[in-house]
Amino acid sequence: MRLRLRPADTSFYDLFSKAAAHLVVGAELLAEMMSDTSDKADVAKRMREAEHAADETTHEIVRKVNSTFVTPFDREDIYALGSGLDDVMDMMDEAVDLILLYEVSSLPAEMSEQVGVIQRCAELTAESMPKLQSMKALEDYWIEINRLENAGDKNHRRMLASLFSGEYKTIDVLKLKDVEESLEGAIDAFEKVANIVEQIAVKES
Amino acid sequence: MRLRLRPADTSFYDLFSKAAAHLVVGAELLAEMMSDTSDKADVAKRMREAEHAADETTHEIVRKVNSTFVTPFDREDIYALGSGLDDVMDMMDEAVDLILLYEVSSLPAEMSEQVGVIQRCAELTAESMPKLQSMKALEDYWIEINRLENAGDKNHRRMLASLFSGEYKTIDVLKLKDVEESLEGAIDAFEKVANIVEQIAVKES
Amino acid sequence: MRLRLRPADTSFYDLFSKAAAHLVVGAELLAEMMSDTSDKADVAKRMREAEHAADETTHEIVRKVNSTFVTPFDREDIYALGSGLDDVMDMMDEAVDLILLYEVSSLPAEMSEQVGVIQRCAELTAESMPKLQSMKALEDYWIEINRLENAGDKNHRRMLASLFSGEYKTIDVLKLKDVEESLEGAIDAFEKVANIVEQIAVKES
Repeated sequence: MRLRLRPADTSFYDLFSKAAAHLVVGAELLAEMMSDTSDKADVAKRMREAEHAADETTHEIVRKVNSTFVTPFDREDIYALGSGLDDVMDMMDEAVDLILLYEVSSLPAEMSEQVGVIQRCAELTAESMPKLQSMKALEDYWIEINRLENAGDKNHRRMLASLFSGEYKTIDVLKLKDVEESLEGAIDAFEKVANIVEQIAVKES
Repeated sequence: MRLRLRPADTSFYDLFSKAAAHLVVGAELLAEMMSDTSDKADVAKRMREAEHAADETTHEIVRKVNSTFVTPFDREDIYALGSGLDDVMDMMDEAVDLILLYEVSSLPAEMSEQVGVIQRCAELTAESMPKLQSMKALEDYWIEINRLENAGDKNHRRMLASLFSGEYKTIDVLKLKDVEESLEGAIDAFEKVANIVEQIAVKES
Repeated sequence: MRLRLRPADTSFYDLFSKAAAHLVVGAELLAEMMSDTSDKADVAKRMREAEHAADETTHEIVRKVNSTFVTPFDREDIYALGSGLDDVMDMMDEAVDLILLYEVSSLPAEMSEQVGVIQRCAELTAESMPKLQSMKALEDYWIEINRLENAGDKNHRRMLASLFSGEYKTIDVLKLKDVEESLEGAIDAFEKVANIVEQIAVKES
């Protein structure tokens, strides 16, 4: 084990917490978008703002890592975590955007369930970020994210089977499959974040 | 050139050989899945088991690289090779899974040909892994994989042209295109593995 | 800041300039492909040749970085820039290839506009590569690429909305969406190149 003296600079943890807080907002907007009665153009506009705010936080992380001499953990891991969190936002934003662009008015119930999984992932991720400082009590987080990813995968497969069951018009299959794949992509991106956190925790322990 | 003393620990080679052996099993299951008379649910179940076994081997590689002080070649190359082999399995698993989910009952002959290319890639990769130890006689392997990838690319393009020729219903185009892209993805993943092996061999020579 | 003495070896800059020059050729072929009167098989053949030439330049960069003791900037950045430029070519080649394979005879006007954005990106990238040597006057380049990417994104969204507006047959939606996504992918790849250049410039300054 190499000896390391890390300074007590907490601002990286604050930035990761901020990035994860954007994801909670994004997941809520996604849930709002799924509702049949929502003003889709307005939700999409707010999602775009949330995505820009998330981008700004990602840039803050990159700038900070570039200008900091001693970082709380490996530089490459900070980059990976920052861009991993950003990827989640991009996938949620894509889902919202496609619903608007394709003028999908009614979304299957299976998709709302999937968005529920995404909301739970966002909350767990936001709760875990401040724990990076002590590196304690993080295991529950990544175990639970992995469990949610499995549940999401089952939902995803059920949704695809339903889409191709003959119940939908082909053009709607095409639309809904794209939306569904963005949702699946968001969950995968959450899992990737959890894997990065696990890797950091293992290295630092 | 830096001087390196690498220990004679053979277990990394054994793990890579094990990972590649899973790919041979996966490619056989894929071939079985293509047959009109196969029990698709049963083949998919066995594929899932093979994929889990492959995952386990990938984790063994990661754990070993994290707990080994001196590795037979660069740590990052071991990660890349391990995850490259894992990616192949994921693509084969995806192809099998989509055939089941989309209830594709009859598959075009062009796809069986593509699966033949995949089987050949799997065998070659499995044969080459033990040769990593001596770093000898590996060139034939990556040259042949590149040749197979070219053949696979020609098949892929023929298949796409046929899918869009007007012969298929649009919903079937949508289904078969997804399956075909997974097969193409598996071949690309084999090529990536061969590129990683080439890179390692060049560095170590 | 670490002290660095970099030799005045200009050949890396020449190779990057060469790689970007291939992109200008590729973008022109793409524009030719969009025309209703072009000989699509012939344009696709010339695109394939351009893509092979670009591949050869990428390999030259990799070989050079592997055989050079002191590189003008970090080895990993050279790899990233080389493969980033190569990715652009692959996306342009894919767009041309799909138009041929899917036998798309008439392309929407929105797509020609998108190809205009790609041509402008290619020219800007080619103009900026020689400036890597002095690391001067590069900021305008990445700002303008980011502006073009935003314009391209707006085109892309307009195109998707139009594709799903009910105006097109479903099979044509499927075809044109694939082509459109390759164009979008090319623009994204240009932006990634600009980001890599920005990162290098920041590090070296």
